[in-house]
Amino acid sequence: MLTLFGNLQSGNVHKVQMILGTRRLPFRRVDVRQDRNEPRHPAFLKINPMGKVPALVLENGDVLTESGAILFYFAHNTPLWPDHLRGQTEVLRWMFFEQYSHEPALAVLRYLKLFSPSLPAPAGRIAELMQKSQAVLDVLNRRLQLTAWIAGPRPTIADYALYPYTKLADEAGLQIANWPWILAWLRRVESLPGVSPVYQDAAVEVVTFDAYFRRP
Amino acid sequence: MLTLFGNLQSGNVHKVQMILGTRRLPFRRVDVRQDRNEPRHPAFLKINPMGKVPALVLENGDVLTESGAILFYFAHNTPLWPDHLRGQTEVLRWMFFEQYSHEPALAVLRYLKLFSPSLPAPAGRIAELMQKSQAVLDVLNRRLQLTAWIAGPRPTIADYALYPYTKLADEAGLQIANWPWILAWLRRVESLPGVSPVYQDAAVEVVTFDAYFRRP
Repeated sequence: MLTLFGNLQSGNVHKVQMILGTRRLPFRRVDVRQDRNEPRHPAFLKINPMGKVPALVLENGDVLTESGAILFYFAHNTPLWPDHLRGQTEVLRWMFFEQYSHEPALAVLRYLKLFSPSLPAPAGRIAELMQKSQAVLDVLNRRLQLTAWIAGPRPTIADYALYPYTKLADEAGLQIANWPWILAWLRRVESLPGVSPVYQDAAVEVVTFDAYFRRP
Repeated sequence: MLTLFGNLQSGNVHKVQMILGTRRLPFRRVDVRQDRNEPRHPAFLKINPMGKVPALVLENGDVLTESGAILFYFAHNTPLWPDHLRGQTEVLRWMFFEQYSHEPALAVLRYLKLFSPSLPAPAGRIAELMQKSQAVLDVLNRRLQLTAWIAGPRPTIADYALYPYTKLADEAGLQIANWPWILAWLRRVESLPGVSPVYQDAAVEVVTFDAYFRRP
């Protein structure tokens, strides 16, 4: 069976749940907690030297990392990855936008609000992240006014990549209802067959980090 | 002819120069200056609503944006994009790593050191970016000890994606000579046919922003 390393607080881990659910591929999940610094634990670094979740171990022992690359791998030969070069390029355009512009604003803002409220960030940093988050949501909202799905008329892995941290924008202190085209698109994404909403566990089995690595 | 929007200060723009040089495709460049906020100018937003460089206008008027997507587009049917799924996934793995972990550390640190010395960043922010930059260089150095090129035994667009901001690490205040496997790899990348080093202009013609958009 496939083994996914990560926990449900991570939008990047949820992207992997989404594509495995779509492909009806059962998986077990090893819980890797960022608040315990487990992604930097030597045992985990042997699986992913980048020290990040998600990591996915295939049945042959091969390891895939980086959520965008994992989405690509499992979208092969499905309609979620277009069959022509220009369409594929458009999908990757939005996936790179997500990793470089969207997630560093929304996910970091959410992290600061949700997970480190006792360690207040400089006010300027919060204001900067809030302004960047609003700007990327504006870009998405205008895009979704033009096309039903992020990369065109049909759902692709670009929708999967952009769903989790957009859905979690409320936790970053943004009211997603202010971006109506995004709100309607979030509902469309959640109605795709096999796709679970954020925080919903889709694993057939969950193992703790300590149990998996046999730490005392 | 192809038209590339952006300037040579941007490592992401340089990636596009690298692949167009490899493919021997001539292009003109419209200089878009970040220090004059030109990427957010309404005339440029009509070309790229994301408000970022690079953007590349094809001869048929179609616009490509996001450096990673542009690299993918022009690597099609060349050895820079492997012909099997697992190899392609490995290339994308490192390209997503570059956009989410590598560039946000190295490029932001460089930006703060080089372009806004009169506006000092909080000391904690510099220290955090320095620590993250060293960590990603450690990841790359260990990788390049194992394989001659980032994604395996042959050069791919993952090398193109990681070259500019790694090469520019000195400007971010890091001594790249401390990472010997990276240093040797930088030289290999610069010796690839058609690839120009950072800051070298490869355009056949350069047009200013004002001249292109006919601003007074």
